[in-house]
Amino acid sequence: MPEPRLGIVGATGAVGRVTLELLAERGYEHVRAFASARSAGMRLPFGAGELEVEEATPQALSAGELDLCFFSVGTAASRALVPEAVRSGAVCVDKSSAYRLQDGVPLVVPEVNGERALDHDGIVANPNCCTIPLTCALEPLRQAAGLRRVRVATYQSASGAGTQSMERLRAETPAEHDLRMDWDFDGVEFDEEAKLRAETRKILELPELPLAATCVRVPVLVGHAEAVWVETDEALSADEARALLEAAPGVVVEDFPTPGTAAGRDDVLVGRIRDDPTAENGLSLFVVCDNLRKGAALNAIQIAELLLARRAVAA
Amino acid sequence: MPEPRLGIVGATGAVGRVTLELLAERGYEHVRAFASARSAGMRLPFGAGELEVEEATPQALSAGELDLCFFSVGTAASRALVPEAVRSGAVCVDKSSAYRLQDGVPLVVPEVNGERALDHDGIVANPNCCTIPLTCALEPLRQAAGLRRVRVATYQSASGAGTQSMERLRAETPAEHDLRMDWDFDGVEFDEEAKLRAETRKILELPELPLAATCVRVPVLVGHAEAVWVETDEALSADEARALLEAAPGVVVEDFPTPGTAAGRDDVLVGRIRDDPTAENGLSLFVVCDNLRKGAALNAIQIAELLLARRAVAA
Repeated sequence: MPEPRLGIVGATGAVGRVTLELLAERGYEHVRAFASARSAGMRLPFGAGELEVEEATPQALSAGELDLCFFSVGTAASRALVPEAVRSGAVCVDKSSAYRLQDGVPLVVPEVNGERALDHDGIVANPNCCTIPLTCALEPLRQAAGLRRVRVATYQSASGAGTQSMERLRAETPAEHDLRMDWDFDGVEFDEEAKLRAETRKILELPELPLAATCVRVPVLVGHAEAVWVETDEALSADEARALLEAAPGVVVEDFPTPGTAAGRDDVLVGRIRDDPTAENGLSLFVVCDNLRKGAALNAIQIAELLLARRAVAA
Repeated sequence: MPEPRLGIVGATGAVGRVTLELLAERGYEHVRAFASARSAGMRLPFGAGELEVEEATPQALSAGELDLCFFSVGTAASRALVPEAVRSGAVCVDKSSAYRLQDGVPLVVPEVNGERALDHDGIVANPNCCTIPLTCALEPLRQAAGLRRVRVATYQSASGAGTQSMERLRAETPAEHDLRMDWDFDGVEFDEEAKLRAETRKILELPELPLAATCVRVPVLVGHAEAVWVETDEALSADEARALLEAAPGVVVEDFPTPGTAAGRDDVLVGRIRDDPTAENGLSLFVVCDNLRKGAALNAIQIAELLLARRAVAA
């Protein structure tokens, strides 16, 4: 297979930079970095060298020079630019929420529903940074015992809201640190909470799964955590759940995982695996991952590698 | 009623200092501050003046010179010193977990079960800083519709772990901020989680109430938050719950309460009041309070004032 020609749109953002870092670590050579006009000309580290950032114009992306392109930009920018790249034959792995719930667009966590990626029509969507670790932890339980309902309280880091949010946290005094709820509100819940429900249902192919989320931003730079209560259809003890999770791909079981222990690592960490004594077939878990890696850049690269290995990219 | 002679043991701690501040604001004059030998002689602000810290010896506390004494010290120190003060006729309001679950010791949140305080035998226990706001939010729902089960994920601030924990947070760089789980672990859960269950059961007088908690320390200086899912025995809509909470003593309903909005205030803030679509008669709430005030010092002072008003102190 010829070396694929890769693009990263949104290369200067928090996820874009980690995507570049991971691609360099993995030995990819034909990589181009794109961003808005404001960042064009900027130089970003790439392996031992640098990449000059190009402006992400429709022309540049539709020139037919890319086999696969990662998009880590806002929803509006993805809606404008992804179709250009698709039209020229590039497969797009898109991190925005623009296409995640669109019929015909696979929404993929490789360890959970990787086969779905092969059935793409030019776009594969990369889920929300909380959905990815949640589905990695739920899928082994679903396979063994079915899922009846799920409740999630999140502890999401500043990096999930982008580099400006990280800068704001860095500039704060400790007395200014607060919990934040910086998402769009529909009158009942945040879009982040609705995404977590809808995306989990799509990935697990459980369109009616009852799932309630309370999303909260915490003053941590990197790493998202989730306190999860899950009820299964059939009985599953905490010990059985632990054994299933220990055997699950992409999951590492630790007693007390935190964002600090997850940052810079590729795995989803699952700990505090307990019976939930309040409900029949109830379990509780604490799920943590590096939201920039497995929650975003790494998951996108894993999707890309799955497509490349299965020759589902026209390289 | 003569002006009560008050003592504060643990006056130099995070809760002790707030207790002094609140007592000065409320116009109490006969106040003595006690702490360990290490802090004896230190001067603490009190209103326009200062108090000199006295050593909290058994002799000092059993001299019969105090009508009511607040204890904000560790469990071992409370076990050693509270009985000395009780023996000399002082009523003790104890913040440690030493006596909270002891038969015959009332565990009191004035808005919830204030009458119980009158039935003391020298000690009234002040609940855990997460239990107090939780019971303030649950009691109006219990009265209206009964409680079937409760799940809580906490976001607890550094000040709940004392001044050293606050200093550590202040000294950290943002990159070092992490979620922490700094409680004793019994092999299944943290003592903090067991306390939240046992104390809530005792205060609400629901000894079998199913309650599961996941406790997490967040990098915030002051203010505890709790994501709560509650199922009631009878149907209760989110609108009905909101109306009940708006009318509840000590509770203020806000849309998006955070520790930053609660710090320095006396009320328990309850927001994000929603139907929980995953369960019959399910609701979810977000409960926040200043853990040093209503979660600790203020609740103790409210207990004291209730006793003084009802002449349940031999002043």
